Amino acid sequence: MKGKEQWHKRIFGMRKNLYIGGDKIGRDDERFGPVLDVVNLTYDLAEDPQYKDLMTATSHLSGETINRFCHVHQSVDDLHKKQDMTRMICQKVGGCVRRCMGVDAINAMYTVSYEADKDRPGETAYHENFKKWLARFQEEDMMGCCAQTDVKGDRTKRPHQQPDPDSYVHVVERRSDGIVVRGCKLHISEGAIADEILVVPTRALVENDADYAVSFAVPGDWEGVKQLVTIHNFRKRDHFPKGFDAGSTDSYVVFDDVFVPWDRVFLCGEYKHGGILALLFALFHRHSYSGCKPALGDLMLGICALAANVNGIGRAKHVTDKYADLIKVTELGYAAGYTASAMAKPEMYIPGLGMRPYGPGNYIPNSIYCNVGRCLTGESVLHELEILADITGGMPATFPYEGEFINPEVKDLACKYTTRCQDISPESQAQLWRYIGDVAVSSKSGCAMFGAIHGGGSPRMEKIGITSQYDIETCKQLVRDIAGMKD
Amino acid sequence: MKGKEQWHKRIFGMRKNLYIGGDKIGRDDERFGPVLDVVNLTYDLAEDPQYKDLMTATSHLSGETINRFCHVHQSVDDLHKKQDMTRMICQKVGGCVRRCMGVDAINAMYTVSYEADKDRPGETAYHENFKKWLARFQEEDMMGCCAQTDVKGDRTKRPHQQPDPDSYVHVVERRSDGIVVRGCKLHISEGAIADEILVVPTRALVENDADYAVSFAVPGDWEGVKQLVTIHNFRKRDHFPKGFDAGSTDSYVVFDDVFVPWDRVFLCGEYKHGGILALLFALFHRHSYSGCKPALGDLMLGICALAANVNGIGRAKHVTDKYADLIKVTELGYAAGYTASAMAKPEMYIPGLGMRPYGPGNYIPNSIYCNVGRCLTGESVLHELEILADITGGMPATFPYEGEFINPEVKDLACKYTTRCQDISPESQAQLWRYIGDVAVSSKSGCAMFGAIHGGGSPRMEKIGITSQYDIETCKQLVRDIAGMKD
Amino acid sequence: MKGKEQWHKRIFGMRKNLYIGGDKIGRDDERFGPVLDVVNLTYDLAEDPQYKDLMTATSHLSGETINRFCHVHQSVDDLHKKQDMTRMICQKVGGCVRRCMGVDAINAMYTVSYEADKDRPGETAYHENFKKWLARFQEEDMMGCCAQTDVKGDRTKRPHQQPDPDSYVHVVERRSDGIVVRGCKLHISEGAIADEILVVPTRALVENDADYAVSFAVPGDWEGVKQLVTIHNFRKRDHFPKGFDAGSTDSYVVFDDVFVPWDRVFLCGEYKHGGILALLFALFHRHSYSGCKPALGDLMLGICALAANVNGIGRAKHVTDKYADLIKVTELGYAAGYTASAMAKPEMYIPGLGMRPYGPGNYIPNSIYCNVGRCLTGESVLHELEILADITGGMPATFPYEGEFINPEVKDLACKYTTRCQDISPESQAQLWRYIGDVAVSSKSGCAMFGAIHGGGSPRMEKIGITSQYDIETCKQLVRDIAGMKD
Amino acid sequence: MKGKEQWHKRIFGMRKNLYIGGDKIGRDDERFGPVLDVVNLTYDLAEDPQYKDLMTATSHLSGETINRFCHVHQSVDDLHKKQDMTRMICQKVGGCVRRCMGVDAINAMYTVSYEADKDRPGETAYHENFKKWLARFQEEDMMGCCAQTDVKGDRTKRPHQQPDPDSYVHVVERRSDGIVVRGCKLHISEGAIADEILVVPTRALVENDADYAVSFAVPGDWEGVKQLVTIHNFRKRDHFPKGFDAGSTDSYVVFDDVFVPWDRVFLCGEYKHGGILALLFALFHRHSYSGCKPALGDLMLGICALAANVNGIGRAKHVTDKYADLIKVTELGYAAGYTASAMAKPEMYIPGLGMRPYGPGNYIPNSIYCNVGRCLTGESVLHELEILADITGGMPATFPYEGEFINPEVKDLACKYTTRCQDISPESQAQLWRYIGDVAVSSKSGCAMFGAIHGGGSPRMEKIGITSQYDIETCKQLVRDIAGMKD
Repeated sequence: MKGKEQWHKRIFGMRKNLYIGGDKIGRDDERFGPVLDVVNLTYDLAEDPQYKDLMTATSHLSGETINRFCHVHQSVDDLHKKQDMTRMICQKVGGCVRRCMGVDAINAMYTVSYEADKDRPGETAYHENFKKWLARFQEEDMMGCCAQTDVKGDRTKRPHQQPDPDSYVHVVERRSDGIVVRGCKLHISEGAIADEILVVPTRALVENDADYAVSFAVPGDWEGVKQLVTIHNFRKRDHFPKGFDAGSTDSYVVFDDVFVPWDRVFLCGEYKHGGILALLFALFHRHSYSGCKPALGDLMLGICALAANVNGIGRAKHVTDKYADLIKVTELGYAAGYTASAMAKPEMYIPGLGMRPYGPGNYIPNSIYCNVGRCLTGESVLHELEILADITGGMPATFPYEGEFINPEVKDLACKYTTRCQDISPESQAQLWRYIGDVAVSSKSGCAMFGAIHGGGSPRMEKIGITSQYDIETCKQLVRDIAGMKD
Repeated sequence: MKGKEQWHKRIFGMRKNLYIGGDKIGRDDERFGPVLDVVNLTYDLAEDPQYKDLMTATSHLSGETINRFCHVHQSVDDLHKKQDMTRMICQKVGGCVRRCMGVDAINAMYTVSYEADKDRPGETAYHENFKKWLARFQEEDMMGCCAQTDVKGDRTKRPHQQPDPDSYVHVVERRSDGIVVRGCKLHISEGAIADEILVVPTRALVENDADYAVSFAVPGDWEGVKQLVTIHNFRKRDHFPKGFDAGSTDSYVVFDDVFVPWDRVFLCGEYKHGGILALLFALFHRHSYSGCKPALGDLMLGICALAANVNGIGRAKHVTDKYADLIKVTELGYAAGYTASAMAKPEMYIPGLGMRPYGPGNYIPNSIYCNVGRCLTGESVLHELEILADITGGMPATFPYEGEFINPEVKDLACKYTTRCQDISPESQAQLWRYIGDVAVSSKSGCAMFGAIHGGGSPRMEKIGITSQYDIETCKQLVRDIAGMKD
Repeated sequence: MKGKEQWHKRIFGMRKNLYIGGDKIGRDDERFGPVLDVVNLTYDLAEDPQYKDLMTATSHLSGETINRFCHVHQSVDDLHKKQDMTRMICQKVGGCVRRCMGVDAINAMYTVSYEADKDRPGETAYHENFKKWLARFQEEDMMGCCAQTDVKGDRTKRPHQQPDPDSYVHVVERRSDGIVVRGCKLHISEGAIADEILVVPTRALVENDADYAVSFAVPGDWEGVKQLVTIHNFRKRDHFPKGFDAGSTDSYVVFDDVFVPWDRVFLCGEYKHGGILALLFALFHRHSYSGCKPALGDLMLGICALAANVNGIGRAKHVTDKYADLIKVTELGYAAGYTASAMAKPEMYIPGLGMRPYGPGNYIPNSIYCNVGRCLTGESVLHELEILADITGGMPATFPYEGEFINPEVKDLACKYTTRCQDISPESQAQLWRYIGDVAVSSKSGCAMFGAIHGGGSPRMEKIGITSQYDIETCKQLVRDIAGMKD
Repeated sequence: MKGKEQWHKRIFGMRKNLYIGGDKIGRDDERFGPVLDVVNLTYDLAEDPQYKDLMTATSHLSGETINRFCHVHQSVDDLHKKQDMTRMICQKVGGCVRRCMGVDAINAMYTVSYEADKDRPGETAYHENFKKWLARFQEEDMMGCCAQTDVKGDRTKRPHQQPDPDSYVHVVERRSDGIVVRGCKLHISEGAIADEILVVPTRALVENDADYAVSFAVPGDWEGVKQLVTIHNFRKRDHFPKGFDAGSTDSYVVFDDVFVPWDRVFLCGEYKHGGILALLFALFHRHSYSGCKPALGDLMLGICALAANVNGIGRAKHVTDKYADLIKVTELGYAAGYTASAMAKPEMYIPGLGMRPYGPGNYIPNSIYCNVGRCLTGESVLHELEILADITGGMPATFPYEGEFINPEVKDLACKYTTRCQDISPESQAQLWRYIGDVAVSSKSGCAMFGAIHGGGSPRMEKIGITSQYDIETCKQLVRDIAGMKD
């Protein structure tokens, strides 16, 4: 495993193609500091003996020890560990780990490229090319991101029916040495600081959508790639630093007639597999949420319990009831992921066909359990925020600025009148309220809320996933038998 | 394994101690027919090769093949199978299997009797006595019930503080040959048709409650035992029978100064273990709910899907969204039980001490997952009913009686004006609405609703279980670290 | 005003056209006792000086004092009083008053018949005929019911597109002396005991549906009318009578080629007015729900508070919080009705046209407020039941039968072991649990639950009413102005 | 009426006592611009003939026309107009009007000062002094704020029991010419830009709390008053201005041994009236919320409808259902306020005594309706946010910065790839997403969310208000009568 220094070296050396607020910047812009700190941890912990078992895996390609974020899951145990690794890191950074999109895309593309090659035997070499690409990715310990969501335009129309054909990323030219693609992927987490951008389709496709069935990987600064970046950092602290200051970024990744050589193309025209790839990335990613959402729940519980202590209501029945609500969502979300892992197989639900063997043998988590878990945790986001607001009262919204706690003229008053309990020092009470301000009253918290709801697919998408795959007919038959219905 | 005939023979021969509506009746009263049909299935399926793996187990006492409802779980796999067996039978009978209380009580008493013997080494032989009792229970393939819930009286007071000391079942006399107990256990499912009544305490106890720390087993017609019975059957069908007609019963089991010989006493005075026994039965029983509630969810889904078909709205978005809600609860409840089984160990959470080895080696499901699963499914009951009512409209409430479909004067009109769709025969449409009438507009359905909420402990009890056992302190520490709090 | 005796005389003398369970019965069947008791109260209270102001009104036709259930609302004050009258009676009978359908239908038909006459001036005399009919109805103090809901068949098709044209009541023959109608109206509350059946369409209609745009009134035993009746009574009490024992009935009212003379026809072919009449009856009826649902809320609050007292948790925070939830729904439902009354005008929202003067001057409550109120109370039904179950625990589901409290062998035990608190006599505690059994664990309670959700139109129907009438465009313009959007 | 210029002149001339981020600033700091713009509108609209009826009233003191924000309500009509005025302005500024706290405090203090004088007749002149103060306040058209919420310290203890006696504002010295007060009021909206700070107690008080029963008014820059201010502005726009840019501020108002002359003291030691004053301000303020929350609902509806249009899902059933949810809360909140106004009297609920005449004749809205309305709207905040997030998807969270739409290198791409529908110009689509970013993904939106939940008292406070004042006993009696309970 190469460490974070190599990664920094690679991305700091990239071409400046990041647009932000009218400027064009490099990956070494200081505003990237907080998000780099998050991802750095995924490198550092892999070298920490305490976490070696969770953080690393043995590559099925090379037999080498690799960072688990570069691994294709080979067993139920791999999936259990991925879930637990994700929860553990998210607990440490206080939010999203920013590197799971890469591992989830790798697993999806590895699987689908294998199956897509069967469409026109001998004509395509998607899977072999992907394995070569992956070998280097693993060896260099690269940071990947996944570019899935398209602009979509008119949502009642399919890709090929859009008024603007570029509403979905598509192939505009097929050449002997590669393809040219155009379009834009949006909401792309960490496109800005990734080594590689992994592109997958965003929805089910029909034959006329064949040009939209395209998957490939390119470096983040590839010719023709332009990223419109938003950076989500917490308010900067001048005097009272946090223990960990996490950041995040999102990009509109524009493919402005980008040439991609064939050895970086892993799907091109196989429209059925395009839809499956969209589903499969979502599936792996929803499995990741069975790790991160429980971590967010753990943190929310800790926040609420501390705020309740400060407010002197830590043992009130209506407050502990709310703890139970938080734990319930957290552990149901975890149990769903656990069960999805335990029932994983090299199989996948294919619309119209049901479960069938899929891919070259790597493990795919159970879809129903991934979906019910993610759906629950997505739908609970606002309720959790309500619990927090209920316990804190208005404190996080109007807490005085740091400066007042430094200004000799009012610092004693600021301290005196923000102190509520005797068991915790005034300084720690203030740090807690500042942190809750970050978590609930900041533009980054607003952003995180949208991500917690929609990331990996909105609850509505999970419901579609659930009802389209569930065996409702058998349930109807149970009822027919008991009710005494003949038909 | 002895079959249902032996069971019938045993209970039909019992002393008449069942009081119902002013009468005193035997177990052969015809009103018990529907509930016998339910329990019969637990005997019949055990002999069906198709279900042998789920329905039977190898006794760790005798090495013989026994009905799983008589088994003490020896492994993770045993717990997985118990969950799946429960779901399977409940799917067939369209509701509660009525025999899980027995197996859950057996497991709890087996475990606790072992630990209680350590309190005064050499003085008590609870565990040996229980094993002897159990050997016969397994051999005879007996039907057990569990008597837990006491009257409770003033809920703000402990047992020994009650105005009426009999508000909780307790020892009123200790003799050389046994003990005399008094009190009443209420809401006791199938006390009326059980071979044996297994008695366990209902709550945590303090030293002054020692007389209330009592556990024992007696036959259902034991001297001094009087049962005030309610029978919950569906409306009798005169013309259009159902495929399966399930019933259930509940008893107020009165112990009117009942003598219990020592070899049937499995706890007597060890107050700490009394509280643990209360918790442990609840824990095993909440695990059972991870089997039955998913089955009820399967049935509700089937009902809703068929009703939606009849009403012509089976593909409407707002209807399939409701299917997803049903599936979500069903499979999260299942996943919680599955995870609880997978993490099972011969360990238990002891209040004040945390997780520690407990019992002679039998497997205890993880408490947090049992509790979050049961809590979710209990809290979802009314929402599921709302979904049903939303999809059916008013049909189940005002559907004409069977007689109108027989009366030559109006039967054609009845048939014509209750027909809504062309794909299903009018007869089957009518059978569906009649069945939904049973499921949602009957006194039995009202009863079942209360059971679905409160059985195995109300959501509130599960929340107390969750918050008292969860590691909230670690969650607080995560926050302290990130927020930069010193204390 | 004629009293209840005259009403009894009229209906007891009717032709036997009620089919129930294979029998054909008259209105004097004893099973109608409980529902007659309910409606009797609407006659008796009108003669009670204490309630004269609420219960009576001055007929705008005759100038005589009439029962308010026969009145066409002439002012805001009339609507306020109708709401309060409804709440008051429902509080006394513990449920639905069973006579509001009549008054609501009268108001709707009075209004629409006036407007429909304008379609072909001079050719129809619907309004004059209706006034004549009404004059007698008022003078005789008749009991009316409203027949609205049709079978509907395939819900994705309009009436004239149905596979079975009789899926909606329609005109099959127009004659010089009247019309012949065929079809069936279902879920018709108190069709069985009404003097007159008032028939209105059930939905919006298009030109091809003209035959379905029919409204008329016929006596309950009119030639060709057959009623398939369900009777919803509580369990009969043998020993411990209730203070008030309410019943209800529903009919499938079949029009088996029924001839209706022109002076009883109030709409025939005017399809636009047919849809408006459907809406307008629903509107008046939703206004009635602003009286009855608060009464049901009052009762539920009283039940919960008494059960909490018995269980010793009357002052627990989580319990009083639930009281607040009940009161919130109750009083928001009341406030919505109050505001709808206060803003009443002789105007109505006409789809496509907006608010416009409608009818001959009688008062129509505001539609938005009627709809939001009814929607809230309909959506809260199951939550209220959940609150009840949470507070009672399992008691109502397994409470011993009356007989056990009489049987000398066990009556003392029954009494002792169902007693929970010292402040209320054991007899009263038992009466409370029996009553809650009626309210929550009976076939009538299941029925009432469906009615509380769907009566007057399901929450979904109210939502359609709300969104189709609300001024969303103005709200969008507010946002455009603030956001700085040009278009 | 003096206009906004006079107000500006007064506050710009104030002593610098505002502390913000380590600085001490005056009211002319440019960061106050957006909040001044909001309040300016309350002055400007009062001079607009179109809004004269809503915006102005006739002073009962002087007979002069005054701004309604300075008025003591003299009738039901005054309360209706206050509600409608509030809704109208909030619709224009897109949020809170920032001046209602003043008018609500005036009404409360006017009422209570009258009653408090009765405690020791002839010894106090609170009411006369208040009227004099008010006359000038009305004449000068002043901006008031209300300082109510104290630090509270240990919430399980009363004011006089606190470890730090300054946890609630209290009298530390009584002098012949006035009193000296100490403590801090927090979350004080617009303390920074108010002419006058109106101080009222925050909770019910007992005899030992007499020093905490203090009410008075002082100018915002009074000697000894120090304000720790937070300013909540939206992100500044560089290129694409909004139509209205609203701001807000909150202060910790510290009373650092502040001397208040007797003619500015309106309560001092009358502890029973102190608790009533706390309740009464909350009551008037909850009535204000019946104006502002419907306006916020109107805006949320407009936002959702526009976003749904842009996303092409404006007519989807599941989307219009959400509109209905928004409207339901909006209009139920409005109806509750309307009914509270309509039932207003010069009466108040006094704990332990029930409703009784209170105050010199001014009108007090009905408390139950104010509370149920505010409770509903407070509890709906997060659900509304969920609806918004559901309809928008992730767009507001990752929308590119303004600069990208200006930068020639990428502006066309930015425009192209943020365009989703054809009916609205790309510029307007972008403005909408930017505005939604303000509304849902900004620190100000986080702040507003807390205010929408907790302002005027949290849902929990309203529930306490509801259950402590509702006639639960009568509801219990209804049940006793029907159930046949003797006691």
